[in-house]
Amino acid sequence: MFNFTASYTDLYQLTMAQAYFFHGQKDNIAVFDYFFRKLPFDGGYAVFAGLEDVLEILQDFRFDKRDLEFLREKGFQPEFLKFLEHFRFTGTIYSSQEGDVVFPVRPILQVEAKIIEAQIVETMILNILNFQTLIATKASRMRLAAGQNTLIDFGLRRAQGPGGYYASRACMIGGFNATSNVAAGRDYNIPVSGTMAHSYIESFDDELEAFSHFAEGQPDGCVLLVDTYDTLNSGLPNAILTAKMMEKKGHRLLGIRLDSGDLAYLSKKCREMLDQSGLDYVRIAASNQLDEHIIKSLLEQQAPIDVFGVGTSLVTGAPDAALDGVYKLAFSGGKPRIKISENVKKITLPHRKQVFRVLDNDGRFAGADVIALDTETDMDIMYHPLYPDKSLAIGCKIKEPLLHKIMEGGKKSVPQSSLADIARYSAERLRLLPDEFKRFNYPHVYKVGLSEKLRNERDRLMAEYKD
Amino acid sequence: MFNFTASYTDLYQLTMAQAYFFHGQKDNIAVFDYFFRKLPFDGGYAVFAGLEDVLEILQDFRFDKRDLEFLREKGFQPEFLKFLEHFRFTGTIYSSQEGDVVFPVRPILQVEAKIIEAQIVETMILNILNFQTLIATKASRMRLAAGQNTLIDFGLRRAQGPGGYYASRACMIGGFNATSNVAAGRDYNIPVSGTMAHSYIESFDDELEAFSHFAEGQPDGCVLLVDTYDTLNSGLPNAILTAKMMEKKGHRLLGIRLDSGDLAYLSKKCREMLDQSGLDYVRIAASNQLDEHIIKSLLEQQAPIDVFGVGTSLVTGAPDAALDGVYKLAFSGGKPRIKISENVKKITLPHRKQVFRVLDNDGRFAGADVIALDTETDMDIMYHPLYPDKSLAIGCKIKEPLLHKIMEGGKKSVPQSSLADIARYSAERLRLLPDEFKRFNYPHVYKVGLSEKLRNERDRLMAEYKD
Repeated sequence: MFNFTASYTDLYQLTMAQAYFFHGQKDNIAVFDYFFRKLPFDGGYAVFAGLEDVLEILQDFRFDKRDLEFLREKGFQPEFLKFLEHFRFTGTIYSSQEGDVVFPVRPILQVEAKIIEAQIVETMILNILNFQTLIATKASRMRLAAGQNTLIDFGLRRAQGPGGYYASRACMIGGFNATSNVAAGRDYNIPVSGTMAHSYIESFDDELEAFSHFAEGQPDGCVLLVDTYDTLNSGLPNAILTAKMMEKKGHRLLGIRLDSGDLAYLSKKCREMLDQSGLDYVRIAASNQLDEHIIKSLLEQQAPIDVFGVGTSLVTGAPDAALDGVYKLAFSGGKPRIKISENVKKITLPHRKQVFRVLDNDGRFAGADVIALDTETDMDIMYHPLYPDKSLAIGCKIKEPLLHKIMEGGKKSVPQSSLADIARYSAERLRLLPDEFKRFNYPHVYKVGLSEKLRNERDRLMAEYKD
Repeated sequence: MFNFTASYTDLYQLTMAQAYFFHGQKDNIAVFDYFFRKLPFDGGYAVFAGLEDVLEILQDFRFDKRDLEFLREKGFQPEFLKFLEHFRFTGTIYSSQEGDVVFPVRPILQVEAKIIEAQIVETMILNILNFQTLIATKASRMRLAAGQNTLIDFGLRRAQGPGGYYASRACMIGGFNATSNVAAGRDYNIPVSGTMAHSYIESFDDELEAFSHFAEGQPDGCVLLVDTYDTLNSGLPNAILTAKMMEKKGHRLLGIRLDSGDLAYLSKKCREMLDQSGLDYVRIAASNQLDEHIIKSLLEQQAPIDVFGVGTSLVTGAPDAALDGVYKLAFSGGKPRIKISENVKKITLPHRKQVFRVLDNDGRFAGADVIALDTETDMDIMYHPLYPDKSLAIGCKIKEPLLHKIMEGGKKSVPQSSLADIARYSAERLRLLPDEFKRFNYPHVYKVGLSEKLRNERDRLMAEYKD
């Protein structure tokens, strides 16, 4: 759906690229880490998403004629433009698996490439991973709240423009069942779903007539919206009449949808009226400004809602709206690199790295990831990134390496995962995460620490720059 | 950049369209209103944006082969698919001008088309207008806070995926000066701007070396990032040395950028040190989690910042993330239509309508818009939409009609406006809005009312459905 040329970037990437180009540094190998600093939604975990899209885009990321013409007008040099004309990403990428639960500070993805290439692709990588990880995380919280009930994405109309396309993909990774978004359904093989709008009912002189016509066209399963005029006195009685007419033809009404009013109260009343009419098979769907907290509250109130249609807060990740993911240089020109900030939390970690997840004996997550040098394979202890006195003994524990080579020489080196595969993997990983990290209020803090060797290297470089 | 086929829609639009198709209603003329219910950011106004994009997309909105194949798989009927194959939007659109200040409840845009067409285009219209209006409004608030200082959009990396493309457009309507987003700059003729990243500096062994190399490549104006290691003890002294070297070659350093630490404190110190070195022409740029409130606070503290680079909160419209715009049926099949909700605020307004802005004698906005039937040209009084006892006498005032025909038979009927034209118009309209509607805290409430005739029509239809 999108024509992502390599102009999907920040201008300064190209300004820096030109500087590298003319100063003989462009082929220096650099390593950049993608990570975020703060978990969204005051939650205890995030769900990593967007990776397959990034790889697809990277494989075909190039400047077209319009891009080059525009950059020429902006004063870029002819020799550099010639280079851009033949630009391809030829680097190597190590990454966590898409769908895994991830935590702050630790590299989630690592790009190793000529510095000029690594820089040009930065903005796109951040843009895609930050957003999809935010939305997959939000969706995962809604899945936790909804239990086994059906979750459908209704968000496209309130999405941030074409961001809605990726939101519909990411929410499937977080555990949604379907989307109303036809374009995303088409491209990602997502089940598409939808009911009817108030306008359809209003366009008839009579609600019952609107229902009957709609049902005739969809004998295999339609959902009737019952709140256009008066849910309990008009919408539901008309839906029941329609269901009864359908039964006579051997068909069954799939469900009704509530879109206003008190959803707990109305769903109970509707369930009662449906059951009393022998329509216990008719399901109840609800929509209207839902989020994970409202879904949780509705189910705690025993609201008999089977299907939740979620829009705005899902596809925009409200109230957070952005994941603060960054892309930081760790190695270049044969040397480890570091950024020293006024803010200690913003000091970066040098070197090529590996991340290990500490496991309990039963294979569940012990609540700790260790960031290490890429040459390390085991460690006895991990250190808090900021407080030197805080450490954790992990010698006897199993450790799972999390970063795997997934792209080499600019080509994907692992088979394509389907969205359904990724969603299944994500659900399995989330199952391995103990419940205390998954609760909404003050979740337990998952520990991310440094190996002794990495900590020593960081401290050595910091001291060097303080001189 | 985007290939918006008509599958950029919610599935239920197509389910309803098929129902209209088979029940002989598809050619019924319908009127839909686009409006929102709540102003974003607890503000006193919104800035309408996205219109030119909607018109461009509409003129070429059709189903392609992949769409039709997908819909066939989903069980849509062959005869209906044949209709979709030849689908074009052939309707008429009345709209406020893009860039105008707009308020809740009143129609901002009105679609008059065959009901089947009006329904299929709904999701796209909402998606584009809701988002761009949100971002133009956010940008406008930053412009109010920043006074005459320069505002640059740095948001692409934190944007909601490709939503960032439209965010860069919308923020220009709200008063921004430039963007870092190359693709948006290319397509919308937006000035592009950018400095350098920490990674550039880190990739050199020495900060001064990094600065000198960078400056050599951009003698006409480069901006140096000074906080990689230590702003006041390393970054700024090195920037001053670089500026002095540039002076010897007859060049001038354009600016420095601060990206961490206390921006008020650091900008003052940097200004002092620059001035003492005879570099009073070097400008100070600042970035790092800025929003309208922080910009306002920095300038109240007399921080000598000339350029603000704004990212996340601009392009995502945080903390709101979405405008709650809706698209509601007002007329179809020769009759006015209404939706009666459990929530009185959600009752819709029937009929084709016009909206009038009440002006003071000096041409400034008096703080009231009247929604009227489209046949009305003047009115003495307007009524509160919800409280029958509240009304406002407006007989002696000038009234400006706000909805103009801009598309007819599916073709734009007004000349293209450039983004710069729209931004100028928006600034002028905002100037006509009194200050009390523009303040951030508890702004004065702009009144939106109904003409007597419209109110009577609504009440008549409500009574009819209550029977």
